[in-house]
Amino acid sequence: MRIAAYRYQGQPGVGRVSADGQQVEPFQLDAQQAALGALPLVEAQAAGRALPPTGQSIPLQQVQLTAPVPRPRRNIFCVGKNYHAHAKEFAGSGFDSSAKSGGDIPSAPIIFSKVPESVVGPNDNILYPAEVSTAIDYEAELTVVIGRGGKGIRKADAMQHVWGYTIVNDVTARDWQGRHSQWLLGKSFDTFCPMGPWLVSADEMDGQNTDVKCWVNGELRQDANTKDFIFDIPTLIECISAGITLYPGDLIATGTPAGVGIGFKPPKYLGRGDVVKIEIGGIGVLENTLR
Amino acid sequence: MRIAAYRYQGQPGVGRVSADGQQVEPFQLDAQQAALGALPLVEAQAAGRALPPTGQSIPLQQVQLTAPVPRPRRNIFCVGKNYHAHAKEFAGSGFDSSAKSGGDIPSAPIIFSKVPESVVGPNDNILYPAEVSTAIDYEAELTVVIGRGGKGIRKADAMQHVWGYTIVNDVTARDWQGRHSQWLLGKSFDTFCPMGPWLVSADEMDGQNTDVKCWVNGELRQDANTKDFIFDIPTLIECISAGITLYPGDLIATGTPAGVGIGFKPPKYLGRGDVVKIEIGGIGVLENTLR
Repeated sequence: MRIAAYRYQGQPGVGRVSADGQQVEPFQLDAQQAALGALPLVEAQAAGRALPPTGQSIPLQQVQLTAPVPRPRRNIFCVGKNYHAHAKEFAGSGFDSSAKSGGDIPSAPIIFSKVPESVVGPNDNILYPAEVSTAIDYEAELTVVIGRGGKGIRKADAMQHVWGYTIVNDVTARDWQGRHSQWLLGKSFDTFCPMGPWLVSADEMDGQNTDVKCWVNGELRQDANTKDFIFDIPTLIECISAGITLYPGDLIATGTPAGVGIGFKPPKYLGRGDVVKIEIGGIGVLENTLR
Repeated sequence: MRIAAYRYQGQPGVGRVSADGQQVEPFQLDAQQAALGALPLVEAQAAGRALPPTGQSIPLQQVQLTAPVPRPRRNIFCVGKNYHAHAKEFAGSGFDSSAKSGGDIPSAPIIFSKVPESVVGPNDNILYPAEVSTAIDYEAELTVVIGRGGKGIRKADAMQHVWGYTIVNDVTARDWQGRHSQWLLGKSFDTFCPMGPWLVSADEMDGQNTDVKCWVNGELRQDANTKDFIFDIPTLIECISAGITLYPGDLIATGTPAGVGIGFKPPKYLGRGDVVKIEIGGIGVLENTLR
């Protein structure tokens, strides 16, 4: 099942995307619930409740997609340096004061967060923060959507807690990330978390074996498969939930592969007008422009 | 004005604490609003709306105080190493892989976050996470409550965005903090953010010149004044809001002074039954026990 959030005739809606990707069947939700996107539906399924009935299909072309979870209930969990090749390029960039030596592979998952209000949708622009940073970078990331919550979740059980997946562009101000040592600020600027195009339930794809690609202005920059994770999805869930209770709708952006702007010498940072297109197998395409 | 959140006769309530600290006047709020503690009141004042009327006073002894903001709308912003003496003891502990050399004073604010669900109140216990960590430490912190929100707030204007203050114990699993490089996990375990006893509005105290003290089982461990901040409150607000829009009710825990457990050789970590008492001038006392 794919669940999209959108605006249609000026109102927020949430619907099930048809198998052919041409239609969306709106769930019958009140306006307050619809404003939370797919979140109330993920929570309902996690609690074993039936989804609300759907109404008459709308052609997808007639709706404007928004982020599937436009306002997460808390900061998004994000994983740093979770592909072998990316960990190497990042350490080599010199920006990461916590890297002990070039090519360091983390010995434990590196988990930071992005504020919920940084989320924007597939049709929104990333705002170029010219006054405070010109070192803006892209990061294509498969993002896990937690279904049933829990604490102390074991690896062997972890995939039962995955509702599904979406795409996030973990946009980053590299100078802020480096200067402030902890990454929250450089990762959380307004509009720095494009998300979409929709959620895909876990039964429809294998998040542990899917292609992650990213183009900037049509040039392929990132091209990897999640098989190359340093820490796989069950390991991440076990690690985060060891001390922290996870809740339905929690989001875990699983890290980005090699090919980010800072990995080039000199770095290829983004500028106004640049278009970042991310494609993840089984989900679709998330494309945003810097303005 | 001091605003307390509490439970009284089984129901959540929010009230204004009397000048003598003996009574609380309940604001007339519906149950949904009352469950958010002082947050709706801070939001109302930030928007220039009048506070709701209050009802008949209740003796403070008859209510059970809860966290004044029991469920913040997003992760709590927290500042690392923001007192000179603490930065030195922390670097000397060897736990911080990002410290370049002993005694390093950060050149820019270090900002990380704690998840909202880590918040507990003055009458709650800190749960000792024996299965996953035995390196549990306390951190007494003055916490800023944002009133009027904004982005790109200048230092000169920043204090106008401060609604007031409260106390937070930034409880930390030191082994997780060190092992995972980014601090989110080690700072966010369930119950790791005791908060209270109430909010105090900015007109009633000077957050930039107030004593911060912490005792463990009656032994004075931390004893400092916020005059010793490396980065003062206006600097923190200018820094965070440069790229991130701040909202009413946002919380900024301003960092802890010297005297945390990891600063001792060997470290004095907390164990079950230990009582951590924090007192901040102008606010009051926050005391919690580990169980």
